[in-house]
Amino acid sequence: MNSKVIRYVFGKVLIIEGALLLLPVLTAIIYHESEGFIYLAVALSSALMGLLFSLKKPDDYVFYFKDGCFMTALCWVVLSLIGALPFYFTGEIPFFIDALFETISGFTTTGASILPHVEALSHCSLLWRSFTHWIGGMGVLVFLLAIIPMNGGSHMNLMRAESPGPSVGKLVPKAHETAKILYLIYIGLTVGEFLLLIIGRMPIFDATCISFGTAGTGGFGVRSDSLLSYSPYIQWVVTIFMILFGVNFNAYFFIIFGKFKKALSMEEVKTYIAIIIGAVAILMIDVLHICGNFFTALRHSSFTVASIMTTTGYATLDFNTWSVTSRFILVCLMFMGACAGSTGGGIKVSRFIILLKTVKKELLYYLHPKSIKKIKIDDHPVEHEVVRSTDVYFITFVIIFSASLFLISFDGKDLVTSFTAVAATINNIGPGLEMVGPTGNYMLFSPFSKIILMIDMLAGRLELFPLLLLFYPLMWKDLFFSTLRENRKQKKNTRIQ
Amino acid sequence: MNSKVIRYVFGKVLIIEGALLLLPVLTAIIYHESEGFIYLAVALSSALMGLLFSLKKPDDYVFYFKDGCFMTALCWVVLSLIGALPFYFTGEIPFFIDALFETISGFTTTGASILPHVEALSHCSLLWRSFTHWIGGMGVLVFLLAIIPMNGGSHMNLMRAESPGPSVGKLVPKAHETAKILYLIYIGLTVGEFLLLIIGRMPIFDATCISFGTAGTGGFGVRSDSLLSYSPYIQWVVTIFMILFGVNFNAYFFIIFGKFKKALSMEEVKTYIAIIIGAVAILMIDVLHICGNFFTALRHSSFTVASIMTTTGYATLDFNTWSVTSRFILVCLMFMGACAGSTGGGIKVSRFIILLKTVKKELLYYLHPKSIKKIKIDDHPVEHEVVRSTDVYFITFVIIFSASLFLISFDGKDLVTSFTAVAATINNIGPGLEMVGPTGNYMLFSPFSKIILMIDMLAGRLELFPLLLLFYPLMWKDLFFSTLRENRKQKKNTRIQ
Repeated sequence: MNSKVIRYVFGKVLIIEGALLLLPVLTAIIYHESEGFIYLAVALSSALMGLLFSLKKPDDYVFYFKDGCFMTALCWVVLSLIGALPFYFTGEIPFFIDALFETISGFTTTGASILPHVEALSHCSLLWRSFTHWIGGMGVLVFLLAIIPMNGGSHMNLMRAESPGPSVGKLVPKAHETAKILYLIYIGLTVGEFLLLIIGRMPIFDATCISFGTAGTGGFGVRSDSLLSYSPYIQWVVTIFMILFGVNFNAYFFIIFGKFKKALSMEEVKTYIAIIIGAVAILMIDVLHICGNFFTALRHSSFTVASIMTTTGYATLDFNTWSVTSRFILVCLMFMGACAGSTGGGIKVSRFIILLKTVKKELLYYLHPKSIKKIKIDDHPVEHEVVRSTDVYFITFVIIFSASLFLISFDGKDLVTSFTAVAATINNIGPGLEMVGPTGNYMLFSPFSKIILMIDMLAGRLELFPLLLLFYPLMWKDLFFSTLRENRKQKKNTRIQ
Repeated sequence: MNSKVIRYVFGKVLIIEGALLLLPVLTAIIYHESEGFIYLAVALSSALMGLLFSLKKPDDYVFYFKDGCFMTALCWVVLSLIGALPFYFTGEIPFFIDALFETISGFTTTGASILPHVEALSHCSLLWRSFTHWIGGMGVLVFLLAIIPMNGGSHMNLMRAESPGPSVGKLVPKAHETAKILYLIYIGLTVGEFLLLIIGRMPIFDATCISFGTAGTGGFGVRSDSLLSYSPYIQWVVTIFMILFGVNFNAYFFIIFGKFKKALSMEEVKTYIAIIIGAVAILMIDVLHICGNFFTALRHSSFTVASIMTTTGYATLDFNTWSVTSRFILVCLMFMGACAGSTGGGIKVSRFIILLKTVKKELLYYLHPKSIKKIKIDDHPVEHEVVRSTDVYFITFVIIFSASLFLISFDGKDLVTSFTAVAATINNIGPGLEMVGPTGNYMLFSPFSKIILMIDMLAGRLELFPLLLLFYPLMWKDLFFSTLRENRKQKKNTRIQ
């Protein structure tokens, strides 16, 4: 293992976090909040530690995919640990485990909260909470890629570890450039939403937080009723942007480079849109009974479908009270998730397309044992490797899901609450059903269950395997000995000099 | 498609069903029940129709695997349609759809009932109900194999279509012989249980029905309280035989031929026993609170675990009232199911072993991308083909499961009832949780939902793909044209003569 790169990247991540923490400091200055000092202290400590770690540049940036995965998982955990400190030190979340839950929920763009009244938080904490969504949406290491030059393969190994979806392609020959373009699209869309919300007379502070939350498909809001009390215009803007952030970013890339036809013919995006339309149509029947008015029903059902399918988790209505069919569809959408290569969570539309095509292929194989066709997406054959890893991904997902459900069942919450709590965290959505529905929160779980749900959130965001590596002792042993070797070499070099 | 073989086998199946229907006729004679005439009438009609269909022997028995699957699925549907007639004509189940539900539930060894009071049924109907379990447990076509000689490959194609599990191996070189041995083991074990129940002073009628129900891992009993009111001795005997019928029959085969070591080293059987012990241990904690006494708790938890894991579905306690953890474990066991090559349903232990090993292999692949090892079971490498089809099986299972849940959700039953109703039918168990728990029944569902659940029962018993072929129009077209060709050829031959 190249422990030098890990140390170096680790340091850089801490510096970045220190820099990012200045945004809540700025907010505190604007609103004259004393909590700002704590944010500043944490920011400075993080940056200082980061400087110490990254003082010495590594000789080379070569590392393996497994190291990239391990490093990514490790960075996300440390990022969350530090990000939770301000919540804890300001006393706004009195227990550290709750603060950590809230922060992991933020970075993983889940949006599951342990807070019953978000209005009680200071402005700087509210902003930091939403800002973590924005940071986690595109990924910190992808950001790092955009600013640190590394050699060839290593870039891709990092990007593959952090980006959602079954396969990550480079948009342009250089991964470095790909990361930059992705971030530019991301910033562009966020600013677009912010401006449209401002036009709708949303307060600047709210518009900032909601834009961050939508962009990262997170779901933390600034009001306890989520987006219920905002105007229909604002709800529509958020609906549209939730859907936009759930689209595979490759589509935007094609549009930027004038390849409109290619963008519009993407099978995943077409399926994604079709599922949204279908789900809205079915939910309409139900919501129409509650709202009475066609347009109100359309607004609420579109908002809910977009919010759940893109795994954002904002709410305008308490879907807990809807019919069994509607709730079942919402649970299905939770697992489905958004497109690969978007900021959304879940299993991803493209994986479902591959899974469905695998089943179709198997049925055809029964009928015509001799004709073996490759699965195709967008008229390109899908590599056997991708199909196999998608199958395995799905199985692993079910295993982790079941194990988590078993472990949190000790809390004795009813089956629907337990089931949807795991579903809403591992798929990075936020609200589930029953006690963890839009009007409930995750405070009711025991510390042990909270830890399990935190692991689920990280597992969901990092696409399972990188996080599993953290539980693999050999990786730690490898890191330990590699660091030891490096230190010895350094001492030897010092002695020679 | 070789429509002649299909016609011929079809006819033979009808004759067998006619013969099997004589057992309830005999029961009616013993108990002086007038319902016996209806059973006799149905038996004779079935046999007569069968004779007409199988009058002309086919020239050759060659057919493809898909034809075998299609034929199997078709035979099971017709078997159920005819088997339901006595229930309907005697007026004991006044609606045909309910009678069909009960019969399919019987043949597929599910044991899900629409009857609130089974005691109201005549003896002959009660016996026929339990006897369908016994028939369905080992399979009608496997029985046919044991008595009709066919040439080479076709045998295996039939057996593969009807036998549960990821791969069917011939126990002896000839499939014909394999089928015979399987049936002998099956009969031997059933008689063994019957004798042990008689020793425990169970009435002969009850002992017959319960032995049939246990052997097929079905679950239909003769009392509304299932097995609660029988003696602890009887409950223990049933527990042990449920576990025995859930074991891969290959193990018994090895034992018969003196290969004890090979039988004891079977990975699937070892895992199966380990899971049972583990589940009993966890459930004990819960049941101890309810029973107070260690041995009573051990009896009830062993019974419940054996009943659910082997997908039998008998009950001694209403597990609906147990803790969330216990109920969650039971739901997991429902999906797990018994060993492949047993009479039990569910996804099967061997499939889970393969799935877990696939995930482990993927993790190892992350760590050492260059070392690709084959998955092994019982120290033999598992064919890539088997691994792939297991993965696909699991995915198809989840898709059919979700689609069914969506369709029955229109009934508006709560999520846990709907979820476990589908789980208990597709895995061929019987009782689920909440409204379909051990004290509930399936009467409450709409006819539409009952049809969906019937399809699930058949899909579960026939391992998904054969049943899916019934919904594939091309198979019907193929059958139609093949029959047309055959008829034309026959006419031509007659003219020439």
